[in-house]
Amino acid sequence: MEKFKRNERIGAIIKVLADHPNQVITYNYFSELLTAAKSSISEDVAVVKKTIEELKMGKVETVSGAAGGVKYIPVLDNSDREQFIDEMCTMLQDQNRIISGGYLYYTDIIYSSEYVDRIGKIIAGDYIYKDIDYVVTMETKGIPIAMMTARYLNRPLVIVRRGNKVTDGATVSINYISGTSSTVRTISLPKRSLKDGSKVIIVDDFMKGGGTALGIINLLKEFNTIVEGISVLIASEAPQNKLIKDYEPLMILKNLNSNSEAIEIVPYKKGDTVL
Amino acid sequence: MEKFKRNERIGAIIKVLADHPNQVITYNYFSELLTAAKSSISEDVAVVKKTIEELKMGKVETVSGAAGGVKYIPVLDNSDREQFIDEMCTMLQDQNRIISGGYLYYTDIIYSSEYVDRIGKIIAGDYIYKDIDYVVTMETKGIPIAMMTARYLNRPLVIVRRGNKVTDGATVSINYISGTSSTVRTISLPKRSLKDGSKVIIVDDFMKGGGTALGIINLLKEFNTIVEGISVLIASEAPQNKLIKDYEPLMILKNLNSNSEAIEIVPYKKGDTVL
Repeated sequence: MEKFKRNERIGAIIKVLADHPNQVITYNYFSELLTAAKSSISEDVAVVKKTIEELKMGKVETVSGAAGGVKYIPVLDNSDREQFIDEMCTMLQDQNRIISGGYLYYTDIIYSSEYVDRIGKIIAGDYIYKDIDYVVTMETKGIPIAMMTARYLNRPLVIVRRGNKVTDGATVSINYISGTSSTVRTISLPKRSLKDGSKVIIVDDFMKGGGTALGIINLLKEFNTIVEGISVLIASEAPQNKLIKDYEPLMILKNLNSNSEAIEIVPYKKGDTVL
Repeated sequence: MEKFKRNERIGAIIKVLADHPNQVITYNYFSELLTAAKSSISEDVAVVKKTIEELKMGKVETVSGAAGGVKYIPVLDNSDREQFIDEMCTMLQDQNRIISGGYLYYTDIIYSSEYVDRIGKIIAGDYIYKDIDYVVTMETKGIPIAMMTARYLNRPLVIVRRGNKVTDGATVSINYISGTSSTVRTISLPKRSLKDGSKVIIVDDFMKGGGTALGIINLLKEFNTIVEGISVLIASEAPQNKLIKDYEPLMILKNLNSNSEAIEIVPYKKGDTVL
């Protein structure tokens, strides 16, 4: 007799998969964990796949062969994605969020473990079928979103730092012109932070002129990196001529300045001409 | 007839709970999601609890009453915890990790989505039964660990920043003396980043003299915050007289300096006299 009943095994398999998104877990692993035959595990996985996909909780892929196993793909259903982004837009249009100087206060959202988890899942979902090696971001406010994206892609995070810190050994640095303030800034990465020739995505919370993203791209050139995509939570509509062409925002912030009395922020839909 | 079979319902419940640690999910929610009677859901939850706890994947608590529901408590089993910290110690004792100046390279671990997930779960587990409102950290390297701790506690993150940034509105700043370099540093928090009188924990990657942690504590006093605990991934053994008394490291780094040829890093066990 097997130690765990079918419904217990299914629960356990789903728990392990949910805790390890985008990672192949072998049938052998489950077989040992649950002291069950591989044939039983294989049947359990079929139920797991049906359940997860029917409830639109993501996808489950099986990998056959000697190192066969199963992988949970954390993609949000399109309507859930839209609904969540709409919800964020509504939250952000609160007039109390206008900060003197013409800024938008959204730190509560990008530091909220619940929101950031879903934002990370959305961004990860956009790259889940590309073979990404690292998720790159710039300190500071982009880190939580980038971290959650990295978690759902099951890839390491790389954090570009301002200035030139000493405690990470040899670093590669470049200077760039910040689009917003037209000042020269130094950014750097430890030499050992990513392997030469890696494929990466860049994730950040906000894009205005695109100067920071361009700076990161130029720094990554020193590592012969291939940038597969740039995702930002919010892009401001102005300036229309950004230093970066190909990027994917979740939301567009319409013109906001020190005199603004209302905030207009809308979901960005692929193919929109707003950019 | 019910739409989902019992084993599918159990799988779905575990998925939702795993995705929302430390959060009460109502029976009503599951009842609607799975179009099943609350009595069936209640029976399913009993199996969920048994499975999760027997496999030492955490705890499952039920909340009775009108707003009754179920909560997943992400506590790592003690032996898993010890084994994981041992594994990190072994990784960190690689001599190639000594950086000129007497520093230890560990960025790969704290930026690895897999390691940081488990570190966050361990730290969260230490405070799961305390009523924490926020997880506070200092930019930059502590953020991924703090973010994952916040995720497992289901609480917002608060990031203390160096200097005085302008885009978050009114900020509260203090100056403190960095224990390491004896220089005066300014750190700040936006006024609206946490509510007056909140209970918090402080999470960081490294502690040497404790100056940074003391700086954070002093800044938090301006918000009448109650600090319920300070957790760090690594504390260096020297200096023995730190500016902070009550803190909880996962690992202790024995004396490391520019002449060191080997790294000694050991797990910290509660009650150890090493500190």
